[in-house]
Amino acid sequence: MRFEAPESLSEQIAQHIGQRIVVRSLKPGERIQELKVAGELNVSRGSVREALLILERRHLVEIYPRRGAVVSELTVSSVNALYDIYIDLLCMLGRKVLERWAGHELNGLAAQVRNHGSLLGELSPSGNDPERVIEAGFDLVRNACGMVENPFLQETLENFRPAISRTYYMVLESRPGEAAETGALFQKLAEAAMQSDAAQLQQVIQQYGEHQRKQILTILTEENA
Amino acid sequence: MRFEAPESLSEQIAQHIGQRIVVRSLKPGERIQELKVAGELNVSRGSVREALLILERRHLVEIYPRRGAVVSELTVSSVNALYDIYIDLLCMLGRKVLERWAGHELNGLAAQVRNHGSLLGELSPSGNDPERVIEAGFDLVRNACGMVENPFLQETLENFRPAISRTYYMVLESRPGEAAETGALFQKLAEAAMQSDAAQLQQVIQQYGEHQRKQILTILTEENA
Repeated sequence: MRFEAPESLSEQIAQHIGQRIVVRSLKPGERIQELKVAGELNVSRGSVREALLILERRHLVEIYPRRGAVVSELTVSSVNALYDIYIDLLCMLGRKVLERWAGHELNGLAAQVRNHGSLLGELSPSGNDPERVIEAGFDLVRNACGMVENPFLQETLENFRPAISRTYYMVLESRPGEAAETGALFQKLAEAAMQSDAAQLQQVIQQYGEHQRKQILTILTEENA
Repeated sequence: MRFEAPESLSEQIAQHIGQRIVVRSLKPGERIQELKVAGELNVSRGSVREALLILERRHLVEIYPRRGAVVSELTVSSVNALYDIYIDLLCMLGRKVLERWAGHELNGLAAQVRNHGSLLGELSPSGNDPERVIEAGFDLVRNACGMVENPFLQETLENFRPAISRTYYMVLESRPGEAAETGALFQKLAEAAMQSDAAQLQQVIQQYGEHQRKQILTILTEENA
């Protein structure tokens, strides 16, 4: 692989390494050696350092003084901490969408939610495409963010995206039927939004988040058994 | 100024520039030139780039491809967006503290809250020390984070600290009596925590946040008049 556009070199490197962490070809706890990566990608050590700072911001690596960068761990407590804050941020996003927009103005978003639900429902267990499912889910979050116009909330959610992608990827890989099951939840999400029912919307988001959290914790326990 | 410990060089540079942004000797919208800063501080351009990435994460600068780094703006809408998410995160923190700990286990934290309240109350308008007031407030947040043990929530709150410091600094500088006024709110915070009253705690946090937001928006309007 060769990288070209100099302006976003560190971002490109970050996305390359980040993708390897999401699909777990780089394992939790694994060290990332600046010099080795720089050699493999034929880029400067400085660009790799910048990429690692970007990945730290995205919760995929941890940088320790003297020890360098390590792929962030996936443990019961780190998954719980991640889902605690992410579910809460999504609830905040849902609330803010409804504060700003009336039900009839949410037609577009609701249609997208329904389409995503159908996409999930149609996926046959054998034709599973984790990356497509994950991308569709985040497109929804991004569009909701666009409606809320809070760059801080958007950035905070974006920074959690890779870490959530990693756990969601685990679920979709080891539970091929899982994508379909979540389809129904997306229908409920669309309904709550159309009815401008903030309490219901938050309940559905929480239900969805808790469902996913439970899957991941089960998989983690199986892996460690 | 000279920088020495090589391991945390970029962090040191970030703190140095960050402090200048907080006290507004570097103004919102002002460009930060890598080469100039590198020359002034006698450090490499790479270290300055890393420092700017750290400051971007802390919401104090924005980095644009080709244009470089700019001190993040302070506008009505950016202040509103910042306080929307920060108040929400503090409410989340308050809820989690009460979920994990019973009232009598909160004695230490409540005492700290009360001390902070007294500190604010005792400050005479003339003897105002914005940095001490701000630091005491964030110590409280940090201790509450320590009780909740969610590294993601802690990191997210820490990353907002410099941006909140900048706005709080503005308030304390232009409203010398303001520190004392917030003392009473801290007493209410301690009471709600001791009574394990999550709804009341969130209401007090919101009240405090809204009060501060209002001050800043008023000052911004005055400055632009």
